Amino acid sequence: MSLLYAIDITGTFVFAISGALAGAAKKFDLFGASVIALVTALGGGTIRDLLIGSQPVGWMKDLNYLLAVAIAIAVSFLFKRYVERLRKTLFLFDTIGIGVFTILGLQKTLAMGLSPIIAILMGMVSAVFGGVVRDVLCNEDPLIFRREIYATACLAGGLVYVLLDSLSVRSDVSIILTVLLIIVLRGLAVKRKWYLPVIR
Amino acid sequence: MSLLYAIDITGTFVFAISGALAGAAKKFDLFGASVIALVTALGGGTIRDLLIGSQPVGWMKDLNYLLAVAIAIAVSFLFKRYVERLRKTLFLFDTIGIGVFTILGLQKTLAMGLSPIIAILMGMVSAVFGGVVRDVLCNEDPLIFRREIYATACLAGGLVYVLLDSLSVRSDVSIILTVLLIIVLRGLAVKRKWYLPVIR
Amino acid sequence: MSLLYAIDITGTFVFAISGALAGAAKKFDLFGASVIALVTALGGGTIRDLLIGSQPVGWMKDLNYLLAVAIAIAVSFLFKRYVERLRKTLFLFDTIGIGVFTILGLQKTLAMGLSPIIAILMGMVSAVFGGVVRDVLCNEDPLIFRREIYATACLAGGLVYVLLDSLSVRSDVSIILTVLLIIVLRGLAVKRKWYLPVIR
Repeated sequence: MSLLYAIDITGTFVFAISGALAGAAKKFDLFGASVIALVTALGGGTIRDLLIGSQPVGWMKDLNYLLAVAIAIAVSFLFKRYVERLRKTLFLFDTIGIGVFTILGLQKTLAMGLSPIIAILMGMVSAVFGGVVRDVLCNEDPLIFRREIYATACLAGGLVYVLLDSLSVRSDVSIILTVLLIIVLRGLAVKRKWYLPVIR
Repeated sequence: MSLLYAIDITGTFVFAISGALAGAAKKFDLFGASVIALVTALGGGTIRDLLIGSQPVGWMKDLNYLLAVAIAIAVSFLFKRYVERLRKTLFLFDTIGIGVFTILGLQKTLAMGLSPIIAILMGMVSAVFGGVVRDVLCNEDPLIFRREIYATACLAGGLVYVLLDSLSVRSDVSIILTVLLIIVLRGLAVKRKWYLPVIR
Repeated sequence: MSLLYAIDITGTFVFAISGALAGAAKKFDLFGASVIALVTALGGGTIRDLLIGSQPVGWMKDLNYLLAVAIAIAVSFLFKRYVERLRKTLFLFDTIGIGVFTILGLQKTLAMGLSPIIAILMGMVSAVFGGVVRDVLCNEDPLIFRREIYATACLAGGLVYVLLDSLSVRSDVSIILTVLLIIVLRGLAVKRKWYLPVIR
């Protein structure tokens, strides 16, 4: 559990860095870029918490999330050029991040007594809708509505987690398998340029 | 009541189809188009539920709504060309839909003990703000901010419903009158090209 | 307290006027401009209430806020040309408004038992995020993400208020000092063209 928490905070940090850079690319000022960093990192979980009715939203009850975002903003601001060279490393952490965000969002939704189908949806929302809010605030078409398999990997991961859970597989085993599945799916999708079909 | 529920589900289905087509028109992939279908169909009621504090939001407690959206996505994906030829039929169901969405949203708000004025607003929000979220996610100006009388028909319908209710008119009678009023108002507005004035 | 309430309502009125004019500038119709007026005036407090979990949101429980917005819409619609000549006066009230919105939002958040850091954030959100929702609905880049010191003045004011409060300064004194600080900071920022740095 403590490992999940550590990855959750690290994922928040990495998401916030990518948000700060996205804000900078739009030539927003320090305030604007900070808002983009914050919504990219915490927006998905915030939407989930609002929809399932878990308020005050999660990051208000554990300031480590805000701290991770604040450090990410400072790092992006001070070492932008260096950070941009780390894209590959960031990509890895981002992918581990969406795996863990999916599971934590799913578990929180189940804990509210909601259906597994809703939980799978909310796992995906936790992982990827911060990016949607980022794109809305940046006044751009949401990237994940056209991108290679990304949200879909989270949905597949969530489905597998729920199945393993219903088979009484040990929780830590299903968590590891789910995160691995999401990482592999997304990695393959990027490498092999897998795309979802478009309605014609 | 059972008839209202049936129309509510049908309206959700029709809204989801129009959302899926809007997503496809933006060249979003299957995931993106599905999100647009979902927010078009369920976004208005979701915003209402968040504002009045009825959480988890309605569609999380009755999976038939998600099912209607899922079928609508599948139908749009498999039979897009056929569906597009049904525009007139869809228009009719869409119009009946906003009538019923208005009443159900209004009743839910009143049941939370809120003022009739708030209930009229929330009836309209339930009926038309899914379309606003759709347009925000599609990165376009909200259609209903410029369109012929549409949201206004819902406000007028809500006002009449509240008035009839205060005169102790039987509930099923006021429901039928309200829905008819919304249908007629919107139909006339489209036919006669009625527009709201613009601030100059 | 009654003075704070009067300024709160006046600030709501002034924000709604600026929103209605923004909607008119986009050539939205009366309905569209009214929605923009409403979200500009009440959107910040609404987001705060959703995040901290105070629902139904504030303006649903005291109809004077909606009344202020409705009058502002009518005034903008009937006397647009006259209102536009009042820009300087509106600027003054807008600036007093964000000062008071910041404090009220901060106090409400503290009253929910949340941390002072969250309260400072929520004070700022109450004051300036109505404008962000306005820009999202108008399909434009959020103004305050690039503008001279504006949200930052609210954050500075919130910080000072929390500090004074922790030093047991009398509440009315810290309120006056905080609002004055926000007014002076913002006035100077506009006059001297102070901008926040951009990440490069």
